[in-house]
Amino acid sequence: MKTFTDKAVIAGVGTVPFSRNSHNTEMAMACLAIKAALDDAGLTPDAVDGFIEYAEEDFDEILVARSMGIGNLTYHGDVRWDGGAACAMIERAAMAIACGMAGTIVVVRSVNDASLNRQKKTWSDARSWRALEETFYNPYGLITDAGRIGMMVQRYILENNINPADFGWVSVVARENGAKNPNSLFYNKPLSYEDYQISKPTVAPFREMDQAPSVDGAIAFIVTDVERAKRLKNQPVYITAAAQSIVKDTQFKTGYYRESISTIPGIKNVGDRLYEESGLLPKDIDVVQIEEPFAALVPMQLEALGFCEPGKGVDYIKNGDRIRSDGETPVNTSGGSIGEGSLHGINHIAEAVYQLRETSTAQVKNAECVLVTTGACGPASGLILRR
Amino acid sequence: MKTFTDKAVIAGVGTVPFSRNSHNTEMAMACLAIKAALDDAGLTPDAVDGFIEYAEEDFDEILVARSMGIGNLTYHGDVRWDGGAACAMIERAAMAIACGMAGTIVVVRSVNDASLNRQKKTWSDARSWRALEETFYNPYGLITDAGRIGMMVQRYILENNINPADFGWVSVVARENGAKNPNSLFYNKPLSYEDYQISKPTVAPFREMDQAPSVDGAIAFIVTDVERAKRLKNQPVYITAAAQSIVKDTQFKTGYYRESISTIPGIKNVGDRLYEESGLLPKDIDVVQIEEPFAALVPMQLEALGFCEPGKGVDYIKNGDRIRSDGETPVNTSGGSIGEGSLHGINHIAEAVYQLRETSTAQVKNAECVLVTTGACGPASGLILRR
Repeated sequence: MKTFTDKAVIAGVGTVPFSRNSHNTEMAMACLAIKAALDDAGLTPDAVDGFIEYAEEDFDEILVARSMGIGNLTYHGDVRWDGGAACAMIERAAMAIACGMAGTIVVVRSVNDASLNRQKKTWSDARSWRALEETFYNPYGLITDAGRIGMMVQRYILENNINPADFGWVSVVARENGAKNPNSLFYNKPLSYEDYQISKPTVAPFREMDQAPSVDGAIAFIVTDVERAKRLKNQPVYITAAAQSIVKDTQFKTGYYRESISTIPGIKNVGDRLYEESGLLPKDIDVVQIEEPFAALVPMQLEALGFCEPGKGVDYIKNGDRIRSDGETPVNTSGGSIGEGSLHGINHIAEAVYQLRETSTAQVKNAECVLVTTGACGPASGLILRR
Repeated sequence: MKTFTDKAVIAGVGTVPFSRNSHNTEMAMACLAIKAALDDAGLTPDAVDGFIEYAEEDFDEILVARSMGIGNLTYHGDVRWDGGAACAMIERAAMAIACGMAGTIVVVRSVNDASLNRQKKTWSDARSWRALEETFYNPYGLITDAGRIGMMVQRYILENNINPADFGWVSVVARENGAKNPNSLFYNKPLSYEDYQISKPTVAPFREMDQAPSVDGAIAFIVTDVERAKRLKNQPVYITAAAQSIVKDTQFKTGYYRESISTIPGIKNVGDRLYEESGLLPKDIDVVQIEEPFAALVPMQLEALGFCEPGKGVDYIKNGDRIRSDGETPVNTSGGSIGEGSLHGINHIAEAVYQLRETSTAQVKNAECVLVTTGACGPASGLILRR
């Protein structure tokens, strides 16, 4: 038990549907998502007194508050580190609620990743020191996330005698779920196991269909306390546990300093602490939302989180039956990053809320407890959410 | 009372002395300051499991942790908004301790402002949207902080019938204090009231001696829980209250949307909440540490914080007697930004610790309670610290 256990709830969620071209700014999408989240909770902007955003977007809480008619903010801030920020943003809001720093907190992330990629632009906050670190890898061809993470997955394959073709089951199930989800980039567009196998090889061991596509889109949440939530429109989702982690020898999207590069110790650390905080175990989790920039990171994280033995993750996902919404461990029921589009883990949290409200497009029966992890290959964070 | 009231303490403080040319990187200075803070607390790097830094520096918690032999981090993040970040960084650490997210947290800020100015460089994170907002003011000559804040001070002068020469008392007392402080840029260099009056006019109503000089330097703190602190080397300083604020119509270093631009509502909001949280009143405060990029912001903040009537701040500071270390409201006893150099408010917090340990170079007798505010002209934050 932590001070904030079950003290804060997610009372609203709002989305700007994913696309390849938003024709909009990140700021405008953020406002639209916040408006939708407030509507979902049955609130108006003047109720908001807290604001958490991602660190690398082209807007800030001052501009958004002024644009939307939000009054005084008594808690505000932003969280960094890409996917690792997602669950940590909700953690921050839960801590602020538990500490009484604010009563109704907006958590928002908005990205124009697809448009920025098309325009060959980067985020506003591409920091010099990060580029400096990368100069050590770039000469060896490790110039993209795929290269840096691919090296780790190669080792995982080698040590566990894996057939990379089996990673395809992750993508197939993700696209099955995404095909049912109107918010997804792949609505009505499933992927067959055969089409996965003939998709373009990119950086070994990856294929095009292993990788989460970048999207434009935005998602906002309203986090508030339990008492306030009782007066709101929707069923509250309890923030039961939250954890953030930079384990020793972490790097950003790599882990070459570590003794083993074939495991994901940041997610293991987050999982262990979430279980300890909540008193729950993997068998108590009804749905798992795992941020996955690449398909292989799903079996690797299922191992780290204790859903199967170390090295047995690929056996576990084979044929996809266990991870489908009617399986024993439903994974990424909205489609996740691969089947819905990548909002860097924030979409995984939204789907956790939908599951607990029983409004998912791939609803798991009697879903009462959802585990979410984000930031597999660097700073990591996680949540356990409950009805 | 908040959940974190008196639950967390500052158990160590470490400084890289201020200079005009550090001949060092921000990252190296951060490590040196952290090492000094750990030594001060009697701890080694492996004790650290939390890390808070400022958002716009050329290093991050991953690099520092690895460089110093810090192990797993279970809470980490950064805080934005210049001076407004300073007290908010300590607030974050106090919340994390109270919520049990980490046990021993480093809070650090390191700047090479003097060197960057000399090299005509800016911080790594000069964001595009901030530049965009500034395009509305730049054509009118409001191209620096002095211009933007000067407009507000001009209005303050007009409405309260102030003689700007009186602002000089702030600088005179600041330099008196700075002259006694070996860490200060102005050690052994006091400023006379007469020299203030003939210092170079910059942007009306300011003179050169109104403005805090930029420096190179770094300061780190160790924040931990009360029990752990009992086993450490130094007397703990209790974090009794903390608040952060973006009031309606805030802008960054301006406030032109507000109905009145001659007051500082962000600091008033912070002060009101600190008093409410702690049950303390201005009369209970023994020392005040007020971040002051410009001298005029001291009387304006003394008003906002209730140490004198609205509009009477300049009367209050006249002759300097009330704000000297033996006066009724000692202000910025280390010299503050003007008399020591500007580390954007972090140095004000360090001096608060020294006062409560009774090791200040301008020690206030029986100092038991210190109020700190930072970020006067934008997002603001504040602390009440006690022995």
